[in-house]
Amino acid sequence: ETVAPEAYTLGDATGPLDPDALRRLDAWWRAANYLAVGQIYLKDNPLLREPLQAEHVKPRLLGHFGTVPGLNLVYAHANRLIRDRGLSAVFVAGPGHGGPGPNACGWIEGTYSELYSHIPRDAEGMQAFFHQFSYPGGVPSHAAPETPGSFHEGGELGYSLLHAFGAALDNPDLTVFCVVGDGEAETGPLAGSWHANKFVNPARDGAVVPVLALNEYKIANPTLLARIPQEELETLLRGYGYEPHVVAGSDPAQVHQDMAAAMEACLDGIAEIQRVARAAGGDAGPEDGRRRWPMIVMRTPKGWTCPPVVDGQQVEGTFRAHQVPLPAARTDGTHRAVLEQWLRSYRPEELFDEDGAPVAELLEQNPEGDARMSANPVANGGLLLRDLRLPDWRDFGVEVGTPGSTDHEATRVLGRWLAEVTRLNPTSFLTFAPDELASNRLQDILDVTGRSWQAEIGEFDERLDRQGRVVEVLSEHMCQGLLEGYLLTGRHGLFTCYEAFIHIVDSMFNQHAKWLQASAEVDWRRPIASFNYLLSSHVWRQDHNGFTHQDPGFLDVVLNKKPEIVRVYLPPDANTLLSTYDHCLRSRHYVNVVVAGKQPQADWLGVQDAALHCARGAGIWEWAGHGDETGSDPDVVLACAGEIPTLETLAAAALLRERLPDLRVRVVNVVDLMRLLPESEHPHGLPDSEFDTLFTADKPVIFAFHGYPWLVHRLTYRRTNHAQLHVRGYKENGTTTTPFDMVMLNDLDRYHLVVDVIDRVPALRSRAAGLRQEMVDTRLRARTWTREHGVDLPEVAEWTWPGATGQA
Amino acid sequence: ETVAPEAYTLGDATGPLDPDALRRLDAWWRAANYLAVGQIYLKDNPLLREPLQAEHVKPRLLGHFGTVPGLNLVYAHANRLIRDRGLSAVFVAGPGHGGPGPNACGWIEGTYSELYSHIPRDAEGMQAFFHQFSYPGGVPSHAAPETPGSFHEGGELGYSLLHAFGAALDNPDLTVFCVVGDGEAETGPLAGSWHANKFVNPARDGAVVPVLALNEYKIANPTLLARIPQEELETLLRGYGYEPHVVAGSDPAQVHQDMAAAMEACLDGIAEIQRVARAAGGDAGPEDGRRRWPMIVMRTPKGWTCPPVVDGQQVEGTFRAHQVPLPAARTDGTHRAVLEQWLRSYRPEELFDEDGAPVAELLEQNPEGDARMSANPVANGGLLLRDLRLPDWRDFGVEVGTPGSTDHEATRVLGRWLAEVTRLNPTSFLTFAPDELASNRLQDILDVTGRSWQAEIGEFDERLDRQGRVVEVLSEHMCQGLLEGYLLTGRHGLFTCYEAFIHIVDSMFNQHAKWLQASAEVDWRRPIASFNYLLSSHVWRQDHNGFTHQDPGFLDVVLNKKPEIVRVYLPPDANTLLSTYDHCLRSRHYVNVVVAGKQPQADWLGVQDAALHCARGAGIWEWAGHGDETGSDPDVVLACAGEIPTLETLAAAALLRERLPDLRVRVVNVVDLMRLLPESEHPHGLPDSEFDTLFTADKPVIFAFHGYPWLVHRLTYRRTNHAQLHVRGYKENGTTTTPFDMVMLNDLDRYHLVVDVIDRVPALRSRAAGLRQEMVDTRLRARTWTREHGVDLPEVAEWTWPGATGQA
Ligand SMILES: Cc1ncc(C[n+]2csc(CCOP(=O)(O)OP(=O)(O)O)c2C)c(N)n1
Ligand SMILES: Cc1ncc(C[n+]2csc(CCOP(=O)(O)OP(=O)(O)O)c2C)c(N)n1
Ligand SMILES: [Mg+2]
Ligand SMILES: [Mg+2]
Repeated sequence: ETVAPEAYTLGDATGPLDPDALRRLDAWWRAANYLAVGQIYLKDNPLLREPLQAEHVKPRLLGHFGTVPGLNLVYAHANRLIRDRGLSAVFVAGPGHGGPGPNACGWIEGTYSELYSHIPRDAEGMQAFFHQFSYPGGVPSHAAPETPGSFHEGGELGYSLLHAFGAALDNPDLTVFCVVGDGEAETGPLAGSWHANKFVNPARDGAVVPVLALNEYKIANPTLLARIPQEELETLLRGYGYEPHVVAGSDPAQVHQDMAAAMEACLDGIAEIQRVARAAGGDAGPEDGRRRWPMIVMRTPKGWTCPPVVDGQQVEGTFRAHQVPLPAARTDGTHRAVLEQWLRSYRPEELFDEDGAPVAELLEQNPEGDARMSANPVANGGLLLRDLRLPDWRDFGVEVGTPGSTDHEATRVLGRWLAEVTRLNPTSFLTFAPDELASNRLQDILDVTGRSWQAEIGEFDERLDRQGRVVEVLSEHMCQGLLEGYLLTGRHGLFTCYEAFIHIVDSMFNQHAKWLQASAEVDWRRPIASFNYLLSSHVWRQDHNGFTHQDPGFLDVVLNKKPEIVRVYLPPDANTLLSTYDHCLRSRHYVNVVVAGKQPQADWLGVQDAALHCARGAGIWEWAGHGDETGSDPDVVLACAGEIPTLETLAAAALLRERLPDLRVRVVNVVDLMRLLPESEHPHGLPDSEFDTLFTADKPVIFAFHGYPWLVHRLTYRRTNHAQLHVRGYKENGTTTTPFDMVMLNDLDRYHLVVDVIDRVPALRSRAAGLRQEMVDTRLRARTWTREHGVDLPEVAEWTWPGATGQA
Repeated sequence: ETVAPEAYTLGDATGPLDPDALRRLDAWWRAANYLAVGQIYLKDNPLLREPLQAEHVKPRLLGHFGTVPGLNLVYAHANRLIRDRGLSAVFVAGPGHGGPGPNACGWIEGTYSELYSHIPRDAEGMQAFFHQFSYPGGVPSHAAPETPGSFHEGGELGYSLLHAFGAALDNPDLTVFCVVGDGEAETGPLAGSWHANKFVNPARDGAVVPVLALNEYKIANPTLLARIPQEELETLLRGYGYEPHVVAGSDPAQVHQDMAAAMEACLDGIAEIQRVARAAGGDAGPEDGRRRWPMIVMRTPKGWTCPPVVDGQQVEGTFRAHQVPLPAARTDGTHRAVLEQWLRSYRPEELFDEDGAPVAELLEQNPEGDARMSANPVANGGLLLRDLRLPDWRDFGVEVGTPGSTDHEATRVLGRWLAEVTRLNPTSFLTFAPDELASNRLQDILDVTGRSWQAEIGEFDERLDRQGRVVEVLSEHMCQGLLEGYLLTGRHGLFTCYEAFIHIVDSMFNQHAKWLQASAEVDWRRPIASFNYLLSSHVWRQDHNGFTHQDPGFLDVVLNKKPEIVRVYLPPDANTLLSTYDHCLRSRHYVNVVVAGKQPQADWLGVQDAALHCARGAGIWEWAGHGDETGSDPDVVLACAGEIPTLETLAAAALLRERLPDLRVRVVNVVDLMRLLPESEHPHGLPDSEFDTLFTADKPVIFAFHGYPWLVHRLTYRRTNHAQLHVRGYKENGTTTTPFDMVMLNDLDRYHLVVDVIDRVPALRSRAAGLRQEMVDTRLRARTWTREHGVDLPEVAEWTWPGATGQA
């Protein structure tokens, strides 16, 4: 048995909407629902002007209807308020799988046709609009970059609130309507992100209206939040700091009235919070009796208005409505007949005129121009993006005389520059950190601003600031998601994190990179600012923490994404870090990953040299090598990438110069990892001829690498000299121990590098047996020393570069 | 100014503890605190029998004191109840960085000395115990595998509750005391995991006592939960379904009394919940008026009992107590003097006897034998592990006549076997899924059990079951963490997930793999059951969803971990999947990643062949190739790994046989990806000679791979024939489209494979120009067909293997 929806009649219900407004609003909602069902099912006969035939139905029915009526309901009601109150608003569809909903709304609003001229707002356009959905060569099933007004695809669930809150920061006049799936709400990231309200300053930031779409189901299960007592749910949301307004039911008229009332209550609540806060000035806090942020709990049936029963099973109001309620509509006559009744139950003849355009009554309800959520430039952030004002990084560089004669904490030096960046861009640049800003030595930013904090402030709390430009919360997910939301809506920022724990957001990174890639192919989308990571407290210096904190593998994840999108930098010292970051903050539409040290470490390059070296991305350090000036080929290339590998490589080079003065040693440092890739595979890739010149075509190359060694092989396996490339890096040997013990555990230490040279340079081998043995013995001595003294061998700990060629 | 703690005197306070019990308990706590401070600072003079000198202090002070007093307080009070009530209990330190705490407790309990005979429970042992902590060659700073009683390292924050709840499942007599850091509570995974209580059946499972360690600070910031109103915090916890008992203060006597009372209330509450549920039988639910699960909120100062002020800054009760309160204790006389006063404030002379052993009064408070949390075998799960009863997978295999003549959904076939596994192991095997069990086609498990669900049950909810053996919750973090906890405590299970979204738990996987690696090196730890992933809904078949759901990169993450720990399998059909999974469920101490298809797909191998092929891991499919029977070398090798690449490869092989009958084509299928690695790098690695025999030393190899193509290069770059290896795989081209369009987008399709063969086999090239052009044209025709018809070209969609050599 398969049952069609009853002929739809809108009942009476009282509330803020007068009968006419109620009827009109309901019509808009019905139109959006009709257009959503049409997208899922129809390739032809869009207005049902003829009886529905099998060939009108798509051969593959792909999409998700269950969540759509809820999305459309919120959208329609938001529109009413946008018009009434002159709001600037955007829409976030947490259940982004309900793509047909936002698509439909954008089509009614006309944005769709403005952006895609082959999809006009008429019968022909509707036909194309339906046909293209989830169709090869058409548009994706989700709220993808192709969807007007979307800046949140919602494919991987959990990040809707973060994107919404990120958008609201520094956007005082913005309202973000954010629908959160009740299934989505089970994810960790979403569960944590309710607390993002503690970072919203109502004087400075816009507002988020979270709407928990409590349709009670996911794909195949009920949701937890639907199956705890209603009172417990509301308690939970209050505990998160919200005042929930509940809209529950399945009678459209009543739900419309309740939703209208709830929306008004929310907007009133927000207006009041903002009014009080703005009157008090940006420094006011919750101590001034701030009200809870309002939100909505929308308990309506999943697949609302779809066939209640299909093949004898309840569908409407259950998980079975998640995807395609009538899966056999093309092949099964009953399903098709019910589909037709279902479509007709929305009364399309009342909704679309002769030409297939929405009737005037619908059009009148659309907000105008950019006020349409599908057209708000905030959702196409590149349109609003302005360059940052960047102070000259050279003014913040450190003096370097003889390379290696001074020490600096690289990230600390960067922090001074970032402080100035923060100061110069007081409303468009934010720094995010999971309680690691100071730990990663960026604390100088706190000289010019505090940490944003809208909760209470305790006596001993430090540098908390209602207007702070640093967001610290112990959630890598929140840091990542808020920054994504902030960037997607046209601003700039960075995320600093411990290197190992950035894996926590691998999947969010993946999704953001995919968004960047896909949106670059959508003509009307404009490039946004790059997502900038600053990873520190890296694998080699986990003296306090040990094995759990050692994982340089984020680079491997990043390099799986499209080369056009990703960049990886491993600056070896303070000035190269500055130069790199200056470049990152100017770039667009990339993900830039920068790994840098925070411990005092030798400065190798002065400002000018750093600029040159970073521009090259990979280059010879003549002063560190030996014999290149003779004009003959080197005997061996010591390559390095990363702070610690560079240090060990230079120490090895110094040893070799002293002990094997005839050996011609070239030192190559790589800052821009993408240089290793073939030119054909990455825009930064070195041409083969250049690569061969740098690394030679046939000499052994000992490559000391910051991360997992096989990553370098993966990047270089097509290079001429790959067979001679020997890489050292982290191979999952670690614990709480000294810095030098760590490099020894992974055979990356200077002594082992010398051994590697001896083993690979044919002319050395047994000739250098004595030195080789000494190196092996020194390793043992170094290890024993740590066991006895708890610190590294003084000759290692106090080692400094002996001076450039020709010097001392 | 640096201020030492005041001379410690225990005040009066009333409560459940009589004065003597209070004094004794406090002494135990002081002893644990003393031993923790000693670990952080001292390498000598452990009992302070002489005045503290610089050389007694470690040169590097590494560790985290701030959280320790809280951990020790909970531990001491738990011990009281373990003795009083005869509990079997384990301890989870969410802030695992407080490793000195659990270490100290284990030493007082004697477990430390039993497991490490070089660390006896006397002065000499104490000296060694202090010395080794965070010391090169010693033990890590966290609650690592080396720590007796730990099964949760707590290095990466967020998973404490999940491990605790996972341990409690199917352990009806177990109590898990789980300390959650208030910083940790900000993480997404932790925020979501409070809801794990909805999966605890009090009749079947044990209980978790969450203790929120509200010391108000993280590394450098206050915590959110400490800076919302107390009432809001309690509201939040009630919303999560708990009844919070608050213990707050800084006067030890009063806190002890309050903690004792709170602990009793919790244990009483749990006992009552369990009594009622057990009386009602395992099927009772919350509808029978179940009480909320009790928990504790412990608001005590961070670094409690440490120097209040250091160098003029408040330390006790602030974030500055997080690591080492007196950082200069070795070099600065004042710091050292204050350190000595601090240590003496615990009155060690009362706590340890002449020999340095804990005094009798302390020893009497230790639970006995396995009742000590540091000795409970539950925390060393391998001790308790029993083999699964496994039905013969061959009985569940599908009949295969001519290869490719029948179709099955591989995971569905597996599901039938898993159903039987579930039935045969009713208390030691669980399946976890993020709402994807049925979507991944494992729903036949639901024929023998339901989904565990302890919340309300709605009219249309399906297969929910108070005693269900499947845990479904829309949180990959919860699935991962609960299963980890379940495995770490000696049981078995699997986690099925969409391939792309398994990246959500990359970091949890990393941590679990590290735990496995490190624990394998701890002699007294026993191997546990492997962590088994079943990834489906993979990159090639995201017909409904598109780009956001396409990411096969988890394999890249997994292969960064130690080869001894990780295994990756890509079974191409139903029987090979069965055979693989049988192997996985028998294995120990690995992480097994299996990627399999869920769509109807050709069966290639019968049960016997599947068993042989899986044992080989990689092998020639003679029936699919052509010319190998002649005894001469092939002209080309078509290699494949994974469901869809295998299909496309066989289709290419069939085309080649038909169109280029003279070409000798060898088809090699790889199930066990580790076979590609050199023998020296992985226990499954093929010896070079075998690899060369299989893949030839000099013929072109066209490798169709399931994942990112460079992964195969990374595994094989040292092989003889690597220069001739040409890999096709996913390269981030995707959208919502047809299955064949997807493979075409990534050049993995049969036609492109034929082109690759023509381009790489020297004898073909221009000879085969006609066929090449036809292939290119067919691709275009196939693409155009999808645009017109929305489905794949019939000759592709309906393609079947034309029959083995010599057949048909
Ligand atoms: C992180 C993640 N895990 C799993 C999925 C697969 N998935 C797609 S939709 C869905 C159910 C979503 O339920 P809900 O959030 O309630 O949305 P709605 O009911 O509104 O469709 C799931 C599990 C996903 N998209 N993302
Ligand atoms: C996921 C993760 N992010 C960041 C860190 C770095 N970190 C170590 S301890 C800590 C603060 C922990 O605070 P809390 O949980 O309150 O522990 P406690 O105050 O008891 O030490 C942080 C941020 C981490 N260990 N894990
Ligand atoms: Mg839902
Ligand atoms: Mg804390």
